[in-house]
Amino acid sequence: MIERLCLIGVGLIGGSLALALRQKGLVREVVGVDPHRANLETARQLGIIDRFYADPVDAVKGADWVVMATPVGAIPAIFSSLKPGWRNDVVYTDTGSTKADVVDAARWVFGEVPGNFVPGHPIAGAESSGASAANGALFEHKRVILSPLAETRPDMVEQVEMLWRSVGGRVSRMDYRHHDEVFAATSHLPHVLAFVLTEMLGRKDEQQEIFQYAAGGFRDFTRIASSDPRMWLDICLANRQEIVPLIEEYREALGQTAEIIARGDADKLLALFTEARAARQRFLDQLEK
Amino acid sequence: MIERLCLIGVGLIGGSLALALRQKGLVREVVGVDPHRANLETARQLGIIDRFYADPVDAVKGADWVVMATPVGAIPAIFSSLKPGWRNDVVYTDTGSTKADVVDAARWVFGEVPGNFVPGHPIAGAESSGASAANGALFEHKRVILSPLAETRPDMVEQVEMLWRSVGGRVSRMDYRHHDEVFAATSHLPHVLAFVLTEMLGRKDEQQEIFQYAAGGFRDFTRIASSDPRMWLDICLANRQEIVPLIEEYREALGQTAEIIARGDADKLLALFTEARAARQRFLDQLEK
Repeated sequence: MIERLCLIGVGLIGGSLALALRQKGLVREVVGVDPHRANLETARQLGIIDRFYADPVDAVKGADWVVMATPVGAIPAIFSSLKPGWRNDVVYTDTGSTKADVVDAARWVFGEVPGNFVPGHPIAGAESSGASAANGALFEHKRVILSPLAETRPDMVEQVEMLWRSVGGRVSRMDYRHHDEVFAATSHLPHVLAFVLTEMLGRKDEQQEIFQYAAGGFRDFTRIASSDPRMWLDICLANRQEIVPLIEEYREALGQTAEIIARGDADKLLALFTEARAARQRFLDQLEK
Repeated sequence: MIERLCLIGVGLIGGSLALALRQKGLVREVVGVDPHRANLETARQLGIIDRFYADPVDAVKGADWVVMATPVGAIPAIFSSLKPGWRNDVVYTDTGSTKADVVDAARWVFGEVPGNFVPGHPIAGAESSGASAANGALFEHKRVILSPLAETRPDMVEQVEMLWRSVGGRVSRMDYRHHDEVFAATSHLPHVLAFVLTEMLGRKDEQQEIFQYAAGGFRDFTRIASSDPRMWLDICLANRQEIVPLIEEYREALGQTAEIIARGDADKLLALFTEARAARQRFLDQLEK
């Protein structure tokens, strides 16, 4: 049972976690802090939080759990403001989509990563955002990655693992560098591709009205381009070391494909498309497990 | 009322059209021809066709409607085999995803495009294919593009338009060159991007097992990479004049974005993502109309 959960960032992820814990009777009180006052009002109206604060320093007072669920760019400043009042008997964790930058920020602020901070990432994004999008069932059957370090206290990792399991998550542990490598490929790169395509076609649409002939395939392909721009700005900057080389690798593969199409090499193109379809089937088979 | 519809190519599109016409009592008899014998057996078992033929020349005999619903690469050979028995009182149309190559093939085979051939394209693709995927409701509220030429007989265009309206389609007319330009952007380019990404990540997955951490965003983004490889081979080769320059334009935009990320230009990146989200919202607003 959590006595008082402090949510720093009351958006889709933090709000959904609070709702899920409340629905299961696992938290007595939830307090929130967020830069957007209207969002906090909404969160209170929706019963996500009991009350809110303007400053994280006030918000964490008396809390036994602190969950940082902001865009990752905000994390270093949050660590700095929490440092003076950091308590060893509190469980601290985050939900950031990148992990190396969060670990680096902790090292920078605290000298070493505090043993009671557990880096985490629930894989439960959506193109909707804000407290109004929160949903207590969001984490059911979703993967949650925890990236404890050698210095992270095992009892803290276990508590955070139990937290996510209690709201339906399937928890695995992964080195934070490997986390960023894997998600650069399966999440960050696809988001960049979708943003770039949608922006480019948006400019064409202004001249030629092409969108009125786009259909379901385009809707699904570009769904992730409706994601929160600020959140994705932070992710791209935080994980640029992984993302930029992957974009270049993709541009190279795409250039080769353009050459294959231009010279009409049917065998190679058919092999590529067939291999792509088989790879996606492998992904789908794993998703259903 | 159609007396005898001849389907050349009994897949998702042709099969769904036949089912829809049957369900509405608008066709007395459907005959089919297809290179895959097992697919024809399936189509007969599912009540899509009454009987089938090995050769288009036999299949079209006695038909008052001929619908060519094959991958576009097969169309020139079909025109050649139909030419000797071409009849002026029959309505001929196609469902190909590209139109310039179909018009060119007709010119090549017949000298000029026959007045009773109406180039068409129902926008109702799916990643499933074959007669077993056919569904009588497929065309409800879906757009159908017709690309008649100056020499196409107006009575023929009207009949084909009525056909598609009768199965729920929303018919518009578009110059065949403009059709290929628009669909290169909203359909062909996204398919190529999805195929290339999925193939590239499939190779990484063999070494690093990244797919097990991919989630709903990735599933939707790559859905179109499960499309029929042979159909997309034909489309890419048929419309390569439009597709290859678009791929290059996209690679250029992507390279600029990689540079923006690499140098950490937050303002430019946020503007790009914000513009992309706004563009997608414009698309969604139109889709719902």
